Amino acid sequence: MKIYTKQGDTGTTSIVGGRVPKHDIQVEVIGIMDELNSYTGLAMTEVKDQELYHELLTIQHELFDCGSDLSFVESKKDVHYKVTPEMTEWLETRIDHWMSMTPPIKRFILPGGTKAAASLHVCRTITRKAERMLSKLQEDKGGVPEPVQRYLNRLSDYFFAIARVANHLESTTDVEYIRGKDVFTFSNEEKNK
Amino acid sequence: MKIYTKQGDTGTTSIVGGRVPKHDIQVEVIGIMDELNSYTGLAMTEVKDQELYHELLTIQHELFDCGSDLSFVESKKDVHYKVTPEMTEWLETRIDHWMSMTPPIKRFILPGGTKAAASLHVCRTITRKAERMLSKLQEDKGGVPEPVQRYLNRLSDYFFAIARVANHLESTTDVEYIRGKDVFTFSNEEKNK
Amino acid sequence: MKIYTKQGDTGTTSIVGGRVPKHDIQVEVIGIMDELNSYTGLAMTEVKDQELYHELLTIQHELFDCGSDLSFVESKKDVHYKVTPEMTEWLETRIDHWMSMTPPIKRFILPGGTKAAASLHVCRTITRKAERMLSKLQEDKGGVPEPVQRYLNRLSDYFFAIARVANHLESTTDVEYIRGKDVFTFSNEEKNK
Ligand code: B12
Ligand code: B12
Ligand code: B12
Ligand SMILES: C[C@H]1O[C@@H](n2cnc3c(N)ncnc32)[C@H](O)[C@@H]1O
Ligand SMILES: C[C@H]1O[C@@H](n2cnc3c(N)ncnc32)[C@H](O)[C@@H]1O
Ligand SMILES: C[C@H]1O[C@@H](n2cnc3c(N)ncnc32)[C@H](O)[C@@H]1O
Ligand SMILES: [Mg+2]
Ligand SMILES: [Mg+2]
Ligand SMILES: [Mg+2]
Repeated sequence: MKIYTKQGDTGTTSIVGGRVPKHDIQVEVIGIMDELNSYTGLAMTEVKDQELYHELLTIQHELFDCGSDLSFVESKKDVHYKVTPEMTEWLETRIDHWMSMTPPIKRFILPGGTKAAASLHVCRTITRKAERMLSKLQEDKGGVPEPVQRYLNRLSDYFFAIARVANHLESTTDVEYIRGKDVFTFSNEEKNK
Repeated sequence: MKIYTKQGDTGTTSIVGGRVPKHDIQVEVIGIMDELNSYTGLAMTEVKDQELYHELLTIQHELFDCGSDLSFVESKKDVHYKVTPEMTEWLETRIDHWMSMTPPIKRFILPGGTKAAASLHVCRTITRKAERMLSKLQEDKGGVPEPVQRYLNRLSDYFFAIARVANHLESTTDVEYIRGKDVFTFSNEEKNK
Repeated sequence: MKIYTKQGDTGTTSIVGGRVPKHDIQVEVIGIMDELNSYTGLAMTEVKDQELYHELLTIQHELFDCGSDLSFVESKKDVHYKVTPEMTEWLETRIDHWMSMTPPIKRFILPGGTKAAASLHVCRTITRKAERMLSKLQEDKGGVPEPVQRYLNRLSDYFFAIARVANHLESTTDVEYIRGKDVFTFSNEEKNK
């Protein structure tokens, strides 16, 4: 058999348990998870810190877990989900850890700096795009597992935290948005709380 | 307080003045502005020319200005907008300036060449995606400030101009699309007009 | 004349034969083709293999061919299409060629590895996004040329194949998704079939 099955040549495709149009919101969602995973892979080529690199590898597997949980047609949804609440809790501990390493900010920062930080900001915004699609899927078909929603919401904050770390590790200072107000109320010393 | 407020864990989020679903067109719009800003930050890591680099830094602030002007719910729209017609006029002077530095073309060019140019073409196409969403927002809710629309329309032409400059500065010739007709009627000597 | 015509300042634009809103699905489609072409240009800056590089250059021209075939309003669609079935057949021979160079896999792989491979996985996922939009265009307006649909379906498999080659050429092993099942049934010896 070949990798190209030609089955999708005329606009429909298969998910687990059935066939749908390619612009079906569920296909959109597994597609954006795949896109996000690819950007994560790209950002990883810029990340030098080994601890960070291995966390991102874990996250790539977890993005596949998210995709799996979203690949089933309605009738097959009595599955054993792969995404667990513990995965989000782990992300929270990592956010706390990395946040405590960067200088406090009060205002929005320009997404950029080093190649690693800039790529991670791209991942952050693609995560948020994925989140928006998930919200659409929930509205249209329902049945989106809450652990997946929570995971993605936390993941964009995680990318924000580590984008700042990536700059910090290369002694690059984040530039604040000049015409903004003070918007952030978080403290950077969560670890000691 | 922590950076992750968990308030968006179940599909809604807050904009200035109210709460909306995450797939609300206005959230899509501020999301794509954020994405575009991140790609701009990424392209900047490839841009060597200092004048260009600093222009892009200004543009990052202005993209935040656009985002600000689009973050308010209908009822709060009696705001002092941050995006002014002067910002678009400035972009026009910069386009004229940079266009005068590159050899004339008659046909479409392949988006690519140096890393800087290729990244700037990506910014160009994301700007155009943002524009399409703005047009949808205008249709659905109305009230999109015209200065923001104009700014984005000009910004994609700006990215086109400087992508060509980035190639030119590294002695890379733009490749014309072979099976195309002559499509461009612009002159490259705007400065002397 | 200037490159910025300002004609699109208030939300509409011209395609060949008429004027439409910027969020018209047909404008979305030519926009995503342009975006995909730009990412291809970006990936090319990472591809070292000369044969691969030149194939990608051909593909950039062919993406413009796709865009051309999709730029006409309904009434002008009695055109001589640029995209031919032969273009897809050529892609198939290239997929077979490149697939035969990489070690077999049974499971999904994490999109990443070298910079070249990671960028090509991004191209793969953007191709698939383009495909989804094409499917929407077909539903909304009809008239999408089948050769274009087939070409894009094959193109994402092509990007998958060469992303693996890019890793292989730099002695980087693809990492399999750990919690996945065996999903692939293709053989890697198509050439000898
Ligand atoms: C819009 C927005 C965004 C937009 C910004 C768009 C833009 N270009 O401006 C985008 C989508 C980019 C964004 C991104 C993020 N955001 Co945000 N964002 C907001 C939001 C909705 C508004 C913030 C804002 O601009 N406020 C400024 C203005 C409009 O409001 P204001 O300060 O109240 O100012 C008015 C008045 O107070 C008054 N005023 C203000 N100052 C003064 C002074 C004087 C003297 C006077 C008289 C009047 C006055 O006048 C102003 C105009 O009317 C807030 C939530 C909220 N509803 O407030 C979250 C919020 C700030 N964001 C938050 C977060 C976490 C983020 C991200 C980290 C998310 C992520 N993971 O990506 C990123 C960070 C991006 C970055 N690069 O730094 C959190 C912060 C949480 C915390 N613990 O601090 C918030 C609070 C949302 C939340 N509850 O989770 N965000
Ligand atoms: C489609 C399109 C695009 C598509 C191209 C898609 C594709 N793959 O082909 C996309 C979205 C990529 C695009 C991008 C851009 N575009 Co554009 N685009 C157009 C558009 C709508 C059609 C151009 C086209 O392909 N024409 C070719 C064919 C279809 O038309 P034609 O030449 O008339 O050919 C027909 C007939 O004339 C006849 N014919 C032609 N030659 C001959 C010869 C003989 C002998 C005979 C008998 C018949 C014949 O047969 C042909 C087929 O029917 C025009 C506007 C318009 N309505 O024309 C703008 C236009 C060319 N674009 C423009 C611009 C500015 C751009 C961008 C710079 C925008 C940006 N900031 O990103 C980029 C540049 C991209 C690049 N890489 O170079 C401007 C140029 C302005 C100027 N001053 O020159 C235009 C004029 C739009 C405008 N008014 O602003 N564009
Ligand atoms: C979902 C999906 C994707 C998603 C994956 C999302 C995710 N995170 O998991 C995405 C969109 C990323 C994707 C991408 C691709 N995919 Co895909 N994908 C599928 C799909 C629909 C399901 C695959 C899957 O996850 N199966 C696993 C589970 C859910 O199913 P299962 O193995 O049958 O397991 C169940 C049962 O069998 C049982 N079970 C399994 N094992 C065991 C063991 C025991 C002991 C027991 C009791 C029970 C049991 O329990 C399981 C749960 O119910 C299949 C088509 C299909 N309908 O099967 C194509 C398919 C595998 N994909 C295919 C292809 C080609 C690709 C891409 C190369 C496309 C491309 N060009 O980009 C990429 C590769 C991506 C990569 N990085 O490797 C092809 C492969 C063709 C071939 N010749 O092998 C398929 C077959 C589709 C097709 N017909 O074209 N894909
Ligand atoms: C920080 C701000 O970003 C906006 N916001 C929250 N979630 C998303 C998302 N997935 N995509 C885009 N914007 C989002 C809200 O307005 C929030 O308050
Ligand atoms: C150059 C051509 O690109 C198309 N066009 C104009 N604006 C956009 C946009 N935001 N996104 C995609 N395509 C666009 C129109 O067809 C125009 O004529
Ligand atoms: C490999 C799997 O990917 C999904 N699939 C097929 N085509 C697309 C696309 N354009 N975008 C996203 N997902 C797609 C289908 O579920 C297919 O079986
Ligand atoms: Mg959030
Ligand atoms: Mg325009
Ligand atoms: Mg396919």
